Amino acid sequence: MSGDHGAPRPDYAARRAALRNLLVENGVDALLVTDLVNIRYLTGFTGSNAALLVYSWDTAEDRTVICTDGRYITQVGEQVPDLRAEIARASARRIVELAGEWQTGRVGFESHVVTVEEHHAFVEQGTGLELVPAPHLVEQLRLVKDAYEVERLRAACAAADAALATLLERGGLRPGRTERQVARELEWLMFEHGAEAVAFETIVATGANSAVPHHRPTDAVLAAGDFVKLDFGAKIGGYHSDMTRTLVLGEPSDWQREVYELVYAAQKAGREALKPGVACADVDAAARSVIEAAGHGELFVHGLGHGVGLRIHEAPGLAKTGTGTLLGGVALTVEPGVYFPGRGGVRIEDTLVVRDGGPELLTLTSKELTVVD
Amino acid sequence: MSGDHGAPRPDYAARRAALRNLLVENGVDALLVTDLVNIRYLTGFTGSNAALLVYSWDTAEDRTVICTDGRYITQVGEQVPDLRAEIARASARRIVELAGEWQTGRVGFESHVVTVEEHHAFVEQGTGLELVPAPHLVEQLRLVKDAYEVERLRAACAAADAALATLLERGGLRPGRTERQVARELEWLMFEHGAEAVAFETIVATGANSAVPHHRPTDAVLAAGDFVKLDFGAKIGGYHSDMTRTLVLGEPSDWQREVYELVYAAQKAGREALKPGVACADVDAAARSVIEAAGHGELFVHGLGHGVGLRIHEAPGLAKTGTGTLLGGVALTVEPGVYFPGRGGVRIEDTLVVRDGGPELLTLTSKELTVVD
Repeated sequence: MSGDHGAPRPDYAARRAALRNLLVENGVDALLVTDLVNIRYLTGFTGSNAALLVYSWDTAEDRTVICTDGRYITQVGEQVPDLRAEIARASARRIVELAGEWQTGRVGFESHVVTVEEHHAFVEQGTGLELVPAPHLVEQLRLVKDAYEVERLRAACAAADAALATLLERGGLRPGRTERQVARELEWLMFEHGAEAVAFETIVATGANSAVPHHRPTDAVLAAGDFVKLDFGAKIGGYHSDMTRTLVLGEPSDWQREVYELVYAAQKAGREALKPGVACADVDAAARSVIEAAGHGELFVHGLGHGVGLRIHEAPGLAKTGTGTLLGGVALTVEPGVYFPGRGGVRIEDTLVVRDGGPELLTLTSKELTVVD
Repeated sequence: MSGDHGAPRPDYAARRAALRNLLVENGVDALLVTDLVNIRYLTGFTGSNAALLVYSWDTAEDRTVICTDGRYITQVGEQVPDLRAEIARASARRIVELAGEWQTGRVGFESHVVTVEEHHAFVEQGTGLELVPAPHLVEQLRLVKDAYEVERLRAACAAADAALATLLERGGLRPGRTERQVARELEWLMFEHGAEAVAFETIVATGANSAVPHHRPTDAVLAAGDFVKLDFGAKIGGYHSDMTRTLVLGEPSDWQREVYELVYAAQKAGREALKPGVACADVDAAARSVIEAAGHGELFVHGLGHGVGLRIHEAPGLAKTGTGTLLGGVALTVEPGVYFPGRGGVRIEDTLVVRDGGPELLTLTSKELTVVD
């Protein structure tokens, strides 16, 4: 499969064992896992249809069962050799049926993933199970990244760093090219540097477009004097990188320098606030207060950052309204921005891992104001 | 925005008017739309966070409101100039709040999209609304494609056709290359031919890997005598193409010719069965019976096809258990396959539109057994 990079297989059984502790804490006999990313985390399976049942008491895993459809018979055998596999198109309903046959009692389900309609269908099956909401349990485990995961995040960030470096070396960022051309080349270069996919739709925004936080590349032409905002990432082994850099084509104006320095200072303050035990809302505040002090608080229209891993956006959220505190080993982005509508904007974003001695930076591209001649 | 291709703007107001008829039929005062693809269909908005409220009686659309977060202030104004916009991070909850302030009564919600947890949060808001499941209403409208949509599907299919033609002309499919290299080049060529994105993860499967229906490209090397299965698509203006071709590197063996001819005949039978009024299950049976008659029914491990449009997989499903009948203007795939585990497999897939006088073929690449020398 793609993205192996010679690394050992993660210890999926250990992850399921950790989940069993959470099931006991939450008072359920078993958990029906239907989120595909959670299934990948717990088993290694990467197909597009699956459901998984994990029992709280079954340490030998005799009853742990994964279900997928006929397209994935070979794949599930290769990727999940250690678990019993069932084949059925309606994979979640088949798992509910099995849990019923095994008279399971209280079965937790991922209420943040299961739709109202799916839940209704489970109930209609008449299995006699007690189905109870058990949201975000696997996500709790996924919050802190193990060495295997950090290695993949590092590789994904390195692919993005290398792609941007190559683009700049080649002169790929120059007046006359379109946003779309630059986006395509940047994506191609990420593949050349080992990405298995792009992490999300690449943003290339030039001139006034840089003031649109989530601008999609158009045929707009890069011009001398423009801010060019690049927000992009690579995916390796299922893990995402996320980086934004804002450059200037030619000599920056005073206004551009001023905005850039402000966002740079805010991003630095945000990074420096990353410590185990710090409240997520306080990290946001550390960066936001810098921008507010300059009188531009209302132009920083989004949260400071988000967790990153098997999904490009995952817990924790760094925002005004963010809850919880950071833990060592959490991977996340720090990405303040200041956007002047119709004029231009700057965002600077890194992917980092929270560590005791200060955060570990995974996106290594320079954040000094880069002037592209 | 991307993928405009000089086409007129779709008549979003007419789509919302058609939805209002469904709301009246379903006895709700308003519909809370939270599926992002449905929101794009109804408004043109393409951001990653939105909720929409459409009233059954409000033909002037004074109360139709779209909500998104601060990142999309500029974008929502540009893409949805005709509707009132609210800005809030918890967009769906804000819409529920507004509906409550406006004392709406019965509000339908998309129970096939809203999770159990979100629904719980809506109820907890204590708005006094009667929230009732109203699944698949916008999907009913999306089933039949209008001229604007077919034009985009045609463009997406043309980009994929052109990419494969260019790959073959260049000699890009030859012994010694890896599946991954071929996949990357095919994707790059789709961009060169106008794609804004790939429609899904490209499948390139050589030799025995071709027996895995949804194989992901690896570093496996293409060898003389191999079946090479290519399943890929382009996205243009939000619409997806989907095509599979299976080629042979060098002179085919008798076994390869036999399997190919079988799948070819099954696919032809499936295409010829596409007519308005025909049951979906009967279309599946038309193709499946050909493979079953040859004694290989158990090697055709998936459904015959699926609808395609703003999603790569949408209604209707062409499968043994498929329900409903076809309508003119429905866009879908026909893709039988026969897979010999450990040996190799063939799938042939087109994207077509159901028409009165016989289906309109959108993927135009030849389906004759192509021998790559």
